[in-house]
Amino acid sequence: MRTLIENGWILTMDEDMQEYRKGHLVIEDDRIAYVGDVTVHEDIDTIIDADGAIVMPGMVNTHTHMGMIPYRSLGDDVPDRLRRFLFPLELECMNDSLAYLSSKYAALEMLLGGVTTCTDMYYFMDRVALACEETGIRALLGETIIQQETCDAMDANEGLQLAERFITTWKNSRLITPMIAPHATNTNDGNIFAQAMEIAMRHDTMLTTHVAEMDYEMAYFRDTYDMTPVEWLDSIHCLNEHILAAHCIQVNDNDLSLMKRRNVSVAHCPVSNMKAAKGIAPVRDMERYGIPVGFGSDGASSGNTLDLFVSMRTFALAQKNRYQDRALYPAKEIVRIATLGGAKALHLDHAIGSLEKGKKADIILVNCDSPSTFPLHDPYSTLVYGANAANVSDVFVDGVHVVQQRRSRIQLRDVREALEVEMHDFYEAAQRILTGL
Amino acid sequence: MRTLIENGWILTMDEDMQEYRKGHLVIEDDRIAYVGDVTVHEDIDTIIDADGAIVMPGMVNTHTHMGMIPYRSLGDDVPDRLRRFLFPLELECMNDSLAYLSSKYAALEMLLGGVTTCTDMYYFMDRVALACEETGIRALLGETIIQQETCDAMDANEGLQLAERFITTWKNSRLITPMIAPHATNTNDGNIFAQAMEIAMRHDTMLTTHVAEMDYEMAYFRDTYDMTPVEWLDSIHCLNEHILAAHCIQVNDNDLSLMKRRNVSVAHCPVSNMKAAKGIAPVRDMERYGIPVGFGSDGASSGNTLDLFVSMRTFALAQKNRYQDRALYPAKEIVRIATLGGAKALHLDHAIGSLEKGKKADIILVNCDSPSTFPLHDPYSTLVYGANAANVSDVFVDGVHVVQQRRSRIQLRDVREALEVEMHDFYEAAQRILTGL
Repeated sequence: MRTLIENGWILTMDEDMQEYRKGHLVIEDDRIAYVGDVTVHEDIDTIIDADGAIVMPGMVNTHTHMGMIPYRSLGDDVPDRLRRFLFPLELECMNDSLAYLSSKYAALEMLLGGVTTCTDMYYFMDRVALACEETGIRALLGETIIQQETCDAMDANEGLQLAERFITTWKNSRLITPMIAPHATNTNDGNIFAQAMEIAMRHDTMLTTHVAEMDYEMAYFRDTYDMTPVEWLDSIHCLNEHILAAHCIQVNDNDLSLMKRRNVSVAHCPVSNMKAAKGIAPVRDMERYGIPVGFGSDGASSGNTLDLFVSMRTFALAQKNRYQDRALYPAKEIVRIATLGGAKALHLDHAIGSLEKGKKADIILVNCDSPSTFPLHDPYSTLVYGANAANVSDVFVDGVHVVQQRRSRIQLRDVREALEVEMHDFYEAAQRILTGL
Repeated sequence: MRTLIENGWILTMDEDMQEYRKGHLVIEDDRIAYVGDVTVHEDIDTIIDADGAIVMPGMVNTHTHMGMIPYRSLGDDVPDRLRRFLFPLELECMNDSLAYLSSKYAALEMLLGGVTTCTDMYYFMDRVALACEETGIRALLGETIIQQETCDAMDANEGLQLAERFITTWKNSRLITPMIAPHATNTNDGNIFAQAMEIAMRHDTMLTTHVAEMDYEMAYFRDTYDMTPVEWLDSIHCLNEHILAAHCIQVNDNDLSLMKRRNVSVAHCPVSNMKAAKGIAPVRDMERYGIPVGFGSDGASSGNTLDLFVSMRTFALAQKNRYQDRALYPAKEIVRIATLGGAKALHLDHAIGSLEKGKKADIILVNCDSPSTFPLHDPYSTLVYGANAANVSDVFVDGVHVVQQRRSRIQLRDVREALEVEMHDFYEAAQRILTGL
């Protein structure tokens, strides 16, 4: 099966940032067979005319919680929202069917917005993985482990068991790459963390966790160990190349140096961090140290949209201001983070993140027919400052055409209706908890 | 002619923030005849079913330059971009037909994104006004006056003449409110500024100008007068209720106190300010002083999109971080700034900015059928964090249904094609200037 995408402005996002102004790209089964400016018409089954569109690698979302769609726009501004609102509501109301439908919805939201690979830590992960398989998104998924009762485990030990079982179940999947996800540095002790790392090393998976995100987390490590969370992870031998550290808002030069030496990756979530007034992570410095960084939308509870175009624009504005430098982060560099940067952070850049012969066919078409995407002088600037999820017209994951002319194979409306029914009790409980705050 | 909009979630944005969950609104000619929760079906010519949509006042864009669509995405990151790139290119290439087509495009971009009133300072203002009338957007427009040769005037004196002629020509227009627009505090001397203010006072118009935006502007006033730009305006008797001050990024407590005493309004442009690394204006403090503040997109050259949903989201993230307070600016307060706040800043709140009986029928329907606008728990949060321009389905200005089911009366595509032809030389000149930098 060979598909030709022709006449689009191809941004390969490879190491040389090669572009083809009226380019041609051939998909053969699940791989890219050709990308360049030569016309290829032999043995083509389907031709897609991408005239006027940008053709680029699918974006990589390095941090989200797909099960949290029902929480979107509830209690946005509640101080200490995680502990006072999200944890109690999750414990009371989250269940396997809600997690499944929410994840299915989130996967479609991401696909329709040009995200072809996502990274998720949540609960009921078999159901989350099923949602990803059914919708056709590539996903790195890990069961959350936390030292408290959760919606799917009595304690962290049960969480560890679920996590390892999940890894063994899904380790040979086409789209799913399993991993493990201890919740955060301050919600698990060193013993639990070390056990999670042992599982990650034994199965050679990534380990993702929230790091240096919260003021109270920073205070806890300072007061208890006279360390930063990053230093603490290193002290318990859990800082290594398996780690995908989400947030890292409060990291100093010593932390960054350690993270570089230990080959840690970062999932940077600009929208969710700023919405919670947690600050702006020093991404320019992370990149100067050579630390791989990708963008994360965070959950719909936190960032409210899974649209990585929003993350790109917010990132540009935030970093330029943080460092008071208008020339910092030209748009091209930001599109790189959203694609190849994310792939590197997930250790998947051998397969995805750029349009190169032999790589997986994870490809999106961004249609530039909306008001703010004209004139198309500079496609990178258009992507960062002018476009949004609604501009994505076509999406391929693993060679499968999962979004065609803005419609996903599984209709969003159907999932939405099912989710709306399922979340009735959830909404009532949310209102009750919010009223009590 | 009576139109009924029924079943929508009506956010009136009046002083009491009244809402109607399944509300009814009747438009009679150019006015709102009824808003409430009683079913009204007598003498209705047209019924619009707004089920699933948010019905709200059209948004107010308090600062833009409609003629600058061709500049979008050119030289985004060039330091000192205004003087090194924008001014030379404007002088060389801007002309009346380019300004007209660009303004027409910009007006459609705003209408399609739910902006029903805009504020513009540029050149060839008769042509800009014509573009607004033809597309059907309400507009406050002023000829730019600056002490250098421009694309439509040899010097500031000719600019003043053009400005006054523009006011007299358009003062009795249905949609256009003329004003005057000396460019900035540091690009006109006190004499020119005073003459512009004299014209504004004699014709009782607003006067808009860029204030406290640039580092070199701040340094100039400090070094030359030992004053801030706001203090300088006051010292030349030009700080009064006619002033709509754009940006005001670098204002101190004394400035704010002065601005409040003199009844000055502010056009806050969060996206353009941050994109140029100019900082985040202290809007919370402005509002604490009681200074009216509205949002501005700034020109497509600076903010890259005229989408005020982007301004709302960016504003939320920026202010919460500037003041390190997650609870600051709940979404409802931000929607207020985008509607009634903007109307107050323009002294038009007697006529627009909220849905109230007797006010002008400037109304938008925001359809919540896109992925990130579900669940619709809190419509304000959805508007600020989940929606974008593409969610706007219907727009009324002055009772005229100018956007119907996402299509404007004048087709965007037609204007785009004409503009594309017209801007050919412009693009070549832009490339030449950028290459020389």
